Amino acid sequence: MSDHQSWPAGAPVAVSFIVDFDADVGMDWRKLDGRLTSTSEARFGAVRGIWRLLDLFAEKEIRATFYVPGEIARRYPEEVRAIVSAGHEVGHHGHVHLFNDRIDLAGQRAEMDDGIDALIEVAGVRPSGYRSPGWELTPETIEMLVERGFVHDSSCMGDDRPYVERHGSHSILEMPVHWSLDDWVYYGFTRDGGGPMADPDAMYRCWLREFESAVEERRHVTYTLHPECAGRGYRSRTVGMLIDQMRAVSDVWFAPHAAVADVVTVAP
Amino acid sequence: MSDHQSWPAGAPVAVSFIVDFDADVGMDWRKLDGRLTSTSEARFGAVRGIWRLLDLFAEKEIRATFYVPGEIARRYPEEVRAIVSAGHEVGHHGHVHLFNDRIDLAGQRAEMDDGIDALIEVAGVRPSGYRSPGWELTPETIEMLVERGFVHDSSCMGDDRPYVERHGSHSILEMPVHWSLDDWVYYGFTRDGGGPMADPDAMYRCWLREFESAVEERRHVTYTLHPECAGRGYRSRTVGMLIDQMRAVSDVWFAPHAAVADVVTVAP
Amino acid sequence: MSDHQSWPAGAPVAVSFIVDFDADVGMDWRKLDGRLTSTSEARFGAVRGIWRLLDLFAEKEIRATFYVPGEIARRYPEEVRAIVSAGHEVGHHGHVHLFNDRIDLAGQRAEMDDGIDALIEVAGVRPSGYRSPGWELTPETIEMLVERGFVHDSSCMGDDRPYVERHGSHSILEMPVHWSLDDWVYYGFTRDGGGPMADPDAMYRCWLREFESAVEERRHVTYTLHPECAGRGYRSRTVGMLIDQMRAVSDVWFAPHAAVADVVTVAP
Amino acid sequence: MSDHQSWPAGAPVAVSFIVDFDADVGMDWRKLDGRLTSTSEARFGAVRGIWRLLDLFAEKEIRATFYVPGEIARRYPEEVRAIVSAGHEVGHHGHVHLFNDRIDLAGQRAEMDDGIDALIEVAGVRPSGYRSPGWELTPETIEMLVERGFVHDSSCMGDDRPYVERHGSHSILEMPVHWSLDDWVYYGFTRDGGGPMADPDAMYRCWLREFESAVEERRHVTYTLHPECAGRGYRSRTVGMLIDQMRAVSDVWFAPHAAVADVVTVAP
Repeated sequence: MSDHQSWPAGAPVAVSFIVDFDADVGMDWRKLDGRLTSTSEARFGAVRGIWRLLDLFAEKEIRATFYVPGEIARRYPEEVRAIVSAGHEVGHHGHVHLFNDRIDLAGQRAEMDDGIDALIEVAGVRPSGYRSPGWELTPETIEMLVERGFVHDSSCMGDDRPYVERHGSHSILEMPVHWSLDDWVYYGFTRDGGGPMADPDAMYRCWLREFESAVEERRHVTYTLHPECAGRGYRSRTVGMLIDQMRAVSDVWFAPHAAVADVVTVAP
Repeated sequence: MSDHQSWPAGAPVAVSFIVDFDADVGMDWRKLDGRLTSTSEARFGAVRGIWRLLDLFAEKEIRATFYVPGEIARRYPEEVRAIVSAGHEVGHHGHVHLFNDRIDLAGQRAEMDDGIDALIEVAGVRPSGYRSPGWELTPETIEMLVERGFVHDSSCMGDDRPYVERHGSHSILEMPVHWSLDDWVYYGFTRDGGGPMADPDAMYRCWLREFESAVEERRHVTYTLHPECAGRGYRSRTVGMLIDQMRAVSDVWFAPHAAVADVVTVAP
Repeated sequence: MSDHQSWPAGAPVAVSFIVDFDADVGMDWRKLDGRLTSTSEARFGAVRGIWRLLDLFAEKEIRATFYVPGEIARRYPEEVRAIVSAGHEVGHHGHVHLFNDRIDLAGQRAEMDDGIDALIEVAGVRPSGYRSPGWELTPETIEMLVERGFVHDSSCMGDDRPYVERHGSHSILEMPVHWSLDDWVYYGFTRDGGGPMADPDAMYRCWLREFESAVEERRHVTYTLHPECAGRGYRSRTVGMLIDQMRAVSDVWFAPHAAVADVVTVAP
Repeated sequence: MSDHQSWPAGAPVAVSFIVDFDADVGMDWRKLDGRLTSTSEARFGAVRGIWRLLDLFAEKEIRATFYVPGEIARRYPEEVRAIVSAGHEVGHHGHVHLFNDRIDLAGQRAEMDDGIDALIEVAGVRPSGYRSPGWELTPETIEMLVERGFVHDSSCMGDDRPYVERHGSHSILEMPVHWSLDDWVYYGFTRDGGGPMADPDAMYRCWLREFESAVEERRHVTYTLHPECAGRGYRSRTVGMLIDQMRAVSDVWFAPHAAVADVVTVAP
């Protein structure tokens, strides 16, 4: 395990802010034909949300990881290049954001390879990290990740610090997520299914207390944002307040997943 | 984009309070035959809620926009005329509040034209603004809006300040909404489907922080109320507290959508 | 309307605390055969919750109204007699708590008359007030209430102070309820359907602010409790805190519905 | 009833912290084949959550009861032996965590006897206490508990202090639970069904106020934790804060269910 290790510059805690750049690609499952409002709500992530998060990270001098579906890169090349120029990591997030556990092997392969191609072409980046669309990794996809030389995955929840996720003979460095450390769970809302529309202060308290726990245990934490959720004005303000409060509590090493993967040591 | 523009009287921020006057017309989808309680709950919006919101706006000296279904105007002419007399804008909100994406072209046409006729007859107003019942604009309806010379729509979510919403060759000035800036999402409750029955203080915090974000970005925000939701005693008090706090934080230009449409500049 | 009237002893506001004594009768729709846990959870209302609410009202010197299904009176005669002895009003709440809008006319008649008979036999009371099980009054039942000489109903939501509820040629004095002023909406939870398990402090804030609004408008408010919900330890403490805070804010006339019916004046 | 009795060392209140050690056995109903993320999320309870709760109880010097499915004991023998070594009680929680009310008599028997065998073999313990998986006791299972000499059950909700739960001619000492005193209700979340993802501070307030009520009534309270829920960093910190605050408010006798069963007196 990775407990009580040293983080760069002697920080007792390491934090990765992650953006799943889904916008209107991740929303294809919603059947949006002829529904201009629902379409526009998803598009907000690319039009406004992504820029606001980029501004926030610039203001706070934080480098983050953006997991980007290939089709998003093709649809929003300016936005994706701005992510790269700002020094953030770009990771793989499928091609058209299909859920691995709901498509067959050929579908998973297309999601994997079309996604890689698009990121290379548009962003000029061959990704070393992967996050499963909809957060459900499958045996087939973990095998593809190993075959293609990915360094880390960030789709599982088997611990609350980096560890090795295994399936059969395959294994990969895991930067674990958790539902409660993802903004979608608090803010996601669709016209058909509704949503919790949570109090941002409740999310703030959860995330800050998780940070306090991580400081005490000298571990790494991953927090995930979506531009169509946390990219709204009042919510990005809350993330900014959280970052300020983290720094008031402790030295913090904010780093993208790839940088954490470089320094982390985990049990084999 | 409309960032950093000047608002009237030098205010750094513009706010529109909007009322979707649905009451017992908007509720027809609930199948209320023989259900006196559910019917009475919807009727509350017209009996008490609308008057309480009118009182609130009078006390706070705010002019708002009321989007009114045609059938509401016919059923509650006294209430709708009181809205007009108080200097508020009356906008179009369908005729019997049918969801555009669930009815055919003829149905959408009837909703549009019957609604216009009713507002002209009862309120003496030909509306220049439109809000889609149930907040799902369709390609057919945006085309009708353009044909009939509407100046603005307020049904989409593609940005968090006025912008141009386009579909095919049609475009219209959009005063965007968002689920989280609508009271229904926090308070809406039906006997069959339940509802979140949210803490008003959570809504207060979201809405105030959105305002703070808007001040910083010098932008316009739209907040939506329903008389059967925010028209209840404890909830309208919370809206009043919010308005007072907004004014304590900043100069604010409170204006109906039509007034905002007059002054706003957006990218073509 | 009943605005700005005088309440007894010059109090600016009148409050009725109401108990819907459902316990394990109200729960028959849950299909509890062979389910000892779910059965026991419903039974808690009679075993512990009702006594805790009686203690609370005794400590706070408040007289309340208990709407009691006939079958509850037969199953728990000691509890129902304790309600009467303590000076509370006993009202009608169906016989086996069947929802009026889901049963036929004969069923509604049986619910009405069996309920009356049981209350007379067990509690020695012919009720003058009625509350519909599950809160959905029907045209058939309002007609029966008028025929049987009931003075008030408390099942509808058409205003937030006493008013006359009408259907066809029938009308009755209404002591209106609202979902958000009922503890079930915050606390109700079943194994099959879950529930919100709300923060009691959120409910406290809603209910207190509704009270503040009522003071300002000099009106009457009805709050509803269920012994299996608010009868739990931490929740009845919260109700106690609410009562204390109400008294700290204003003189209050706490009264059962029948007493309010005696003094209230409403538009014909 | 057990009101106003004396607890050991003169404490006015007795508290049992309980852990339902479900992890990836309790989750079999989720259909986890080929779903590495959902599987890993359940596994977290055994990998990290159980150890964090053991650390918490060690730090706070509290002995708890762990209800452990037989299959968990076989899958995680090291963890289960650590529970025993630390002086905690191990109770019965089915074998593969099947819901009693959804399986037939033979299935209930297998759950009962396979579970006992596994606990004896792995933990060296014949359990005297039982908690129904999914919290729905059945007539068949209560009969088996009596036949096998169990001393207490902890699956029902018929009171808020120890009592005798009866069915037909069978009865057993009950250490009652309640949905709102279980962390799963606040934190449980699945990819398919979602979940409330509640504010931990809301849970803290409910649980603390329940404790205050118990102090006043000198009674016993059971709080239930799941390692995959409260075993996360920010949530176990909240439980720690709760324990500290309980001690700041009152002397408390923290004890496992078996110890409470030894001293409690209940009405026959």
